Amino acid sequence: MSDRGDKGITLGQCNMEMSKNSPFVRTVGMIDELQARVAGARILFENKKNVEFEQIEKDLYHIMGSLYKGMKWEEGEGRIKKMESEIESYGEKFGNPKQFLIPGKNELEVRINLCRTGCRLAEEELVLLKESQEKNDLYFDGNILKYINKLSTYFYWGWRENYK
Amino acid sequence: MSDRGDKGITLGQCNMEMSKNSPFVRTVGMIDELQARVAGARILFENKKNVEFEQIEKDLYHIMGSLYKGMKWEEGEGRIKKMESEIESYGEKFGNPKQFLIPGKNELEVRINLCRTGCRLAEEELVLLKESQEKNDLYFDGNILKYINKLSTYFYWGWRENYK
Amino acid sequence: MSDRGDKGITLGQCNMEMSKNSPFVRTVGMIDELQARVAGARILFENKKNVEFEQIEKDLYHIMGSLYKGMKWEEGEGRIKKMESEIESYGEKFGNPKQFLIPGKNELEVRINLCRTGCRLAEEELVLLKESQEKNDLYFDGNILKYINKLSTYFYWGWRENYK
Repeated sequence: MSDRGDKGITLGQCNMEMSKNSPFVRTVGMIDELQARVAGARILFENKKNVEFEQIEKDLYHIMGSLYKGMKWEEGEGRIKKMESEIESYGEKFGNPKQFLIPGKNELEVRINLCRTGCRLAEEELVLLKESQEKNDLYFDGNILKYINKLSTYFYWGWRENYK
Repeated sequence: MSDRGDKGITLGQCNMEMSKNSPFVRTVGMIDELQARVAGARILFENKKNVEFEQIEKDLYHIMGSLYKGMKWEEGEGRIKKMESEIESYGEKFGNPKQFLIPGKNELEVRINLCRTGCRLAEEELVLLKESQEKNDLYFDGNILKYINKLSTYFYWGWRENYK
Repeated sequence: MSDRGDKGITLGQCNMEMSKNSPFVRTVGMIDELQARVAGARILFENKKNVEFEQIEKDLYHIMGSLYKGMKWEEGEGRIKKMESEIESYGEKFGNPKQFLIPGKNELEVRINLCRTGCRLAEEELVLLKESQEKNDLYFDGNILKYINKLSTYFYWGWRENYK
């Protein structure tokens, strides 16, 4: 058992020791939290949507891996395109809704909404990480931020779709 | 679709571009999260309490709107008074309880408790925003902080009420 | 009713007035959140595990109390030993699993996973508090950090145990 973890230190990017309060650890912690929320919504889905949400969880897993390795998220571009196309389909289906909706219709909708707010919380940390990496001339894969931003919109629509 | 959001920038207060890691965005993100939690508790309520929690969600929506506009929350004073009167009624009903209670009796109580902890998390960000606004000579409506503080007490009592 | 709380000030460590955005208040807020999550998992357990999770909630309560008093967490060493022995038992049972698992099998597993991510979020704040206390030559009980670190591993195994 590692003694390090007990003292607030962990192995972060590229196996460097870092404080558990660093932007890197905070970011990975919040993506982990987001994955946990997606799982909570997923178990209420059957069939197609369950598979979609599982893929999102895998994306988040791969994103965490890329951050640890300090390398590009390989599947990033493809997955962003996929998200954009999902969002476009939703847009065609729902148009530009004027009406503001108050969450709280059913359990599934509540959980998708918590995925959406989880995205926002993760994005906040990611932006801090981006700024910190750039300041230190370290690599940051902008596609990760882009994907989480799309994901937030995707959950917004998924939330609306199940608001009934 | 906006390119801005993909880069960690968003439109914040008064339509100014700002980092998604600014105190403003963090505050709105956590109030959004709090609203999502209130929705999760609300769907377990029927009748009167459901309406009360729905009103709280609307309050949080209006608070986010006021923050974006950089203007006073119009309904603030009235809603704070209402909360104070609810808290007073609870106080008369429950007195000054000495006994410490460990959460975990039933699903409703668990969710109200998560609303209470969500209030605390939102308050932390709000205080950061308040300090940042004041440092920059920008407007901050103190009633928003006051309301969230009352709301935290309100959820504390609602939690106790359903601890059975 | 205190006026202080309405202004973003609270009584923190050793009854000192402090900002609700201080590392101290953030830490206690996130431990409170963690306790709320453990309660959510606990209500799905019966018998032995329910008692174990209740004890963890009590630990978190005592930890918050110790932080407020600025004193040692009395039960710390014993509880860390207990956690280490639980983790060891899990290790013997599960070995060193190579397979990565995607959360989302059942409600109990989802909630234990949210306890685990809650530990990580609490640890981040605790490390900030530790650094801030040390900088100011104030007492910080390292056992608290150690316990939360063990707890995170304990929830990891509990999550795997219920992944079915």
